[in-house]
Amino acid sequence: MRFSPLLEQLIEALRCLPGVGPKTAQRMALTLLTRNRERGMHLANILTRAIEEVKHCEMCRIFSETTLCHICTSTHRDASQLCIVENPIDVIAIEQTNSYRGKYFVLLGRLSPLDGIGPDAIGIDQLTARFKTNEIKEIIIATNPTVEGEATAHYIATLAKTYHIKTTRIAHGVPIGSELEYIDANTLSHALIEREVVT
Amino acid sequence: MRFSPLLEQLIEALRCLPGVGPKTAQRMALTLLTRNRERGMHLANILTRAIEEVKHCEMCRIFSETTLCHICTSTHRDASQLCIVENPIDVIAIEQTNSYRGKYFVLLGRLSPLDGIGPDAIGIDQLTARFKTNEIKEIIIATNPTVEGEATAHYIATLAKTYHIKTTRIAHGVPIGSELEYIDANTLSHALIEREVVT
Repeated sequence: MRFSPLLEQLIEALRCLPGVGPKTAQRMALTLLTRNRERGMHLANILTRAIEEVKHCEMCRIFSETTLCHICTSTHRDASQLCIVENPIDVIAIEQTNSYRGKYFVLLGRLSPLDGIGPDAIGIDQLTARFKTNEIKEIIIATNPTVEGEATAHYIATLAKTYHIKTTRIAHGVPIGSELEYIDANTLSHALIEREVVT
Repeated sequence: MRFSPLLEQLIEALRCLPGVGPKTAQRMALTLLTRNRERGMHLANILTRAIEEVKHCEMCRIFSETTLCHICTSTHRDASQLCIVENPIDVIAIEQTNSYRGKYFVLLGRLSPLDGIGPDAIGIDQLTARFKTNEIKEIIIATNPTVEGEATAHYIATLAKTYHIKTTRIAHGVPIGSELEYIDANTLSHALIEREVVT
């Protein structure tokens, strides 16, 4: 035993945080106890409250402690556009662009049959219910451009077709500001195939 | 507002951890809520308990939830040697060498008059009480080789002299396994002055 039992337990518990290994956890525990007890206690309280109270918005599945989130209840957003993303963090990324004023649907994952993640797990039932309301005129599929993300996009596009909803996918290609020589062949090949007509 | 209020508060609270900036805090909060709620709750509980229960050993001032720590109560350690360090983490570093079997005293800081840290704040009273017991035959001062650490070492050495206790300081010089060309001039100059006689 190197530390007191409770301190050892704290170090072990801190390792549940992403990117925190044994050394970092040790430093965190010692710093908290040495000069951050008040803020540490605040963290413990907020963490407990957040875990107990933060659920998912019943409409778009983003994190929210209210039944409906502030985007779903907003009257300033275009309810005819629905952007479909994998994770809550993707919503933040898109919001930061300031170029989308529609609503969202968060899958909280992507189809991955090998991991046992099927349509039920990514809220396809809820999404279908949204489609049935006839409120949505266009869905913008913004799943990640990975194998599973593409499969999920294809699945959702097929579903939307049966409800005659216009379906778009965010553009993939060479990132703005990058240089061609550093772009991987896959992306570049996609960028060539999906070339845009210059008007 | 980007996230729900409680989630924003959690992200802010996580920043009390050392080395955690806004981006990392965001990732931690989302990961905890997405797939680590159980371990997150465990962390909150342990953190609360640790902050409430972990105090300092009354003898050596290391972190301990018992009045005396496991090193101070151990009968297998040499009570005539006392190693004096700045921080609890230094005790761990020395323990890991497996080459010290005496006891410890943790200053929990170093003399720094500019920051208002005087002898009271680093437990000099407690240390003097230990000196008075006549149990200690040698103190090994292992404060950091910084300006404040050196000043603290000097202060303690002067104090120990009045109690006729043998005082040593850990050796400073070129680290084992390093190459001379990468050693700073200060360290190298010290290593030359404090050269050891080869026997």
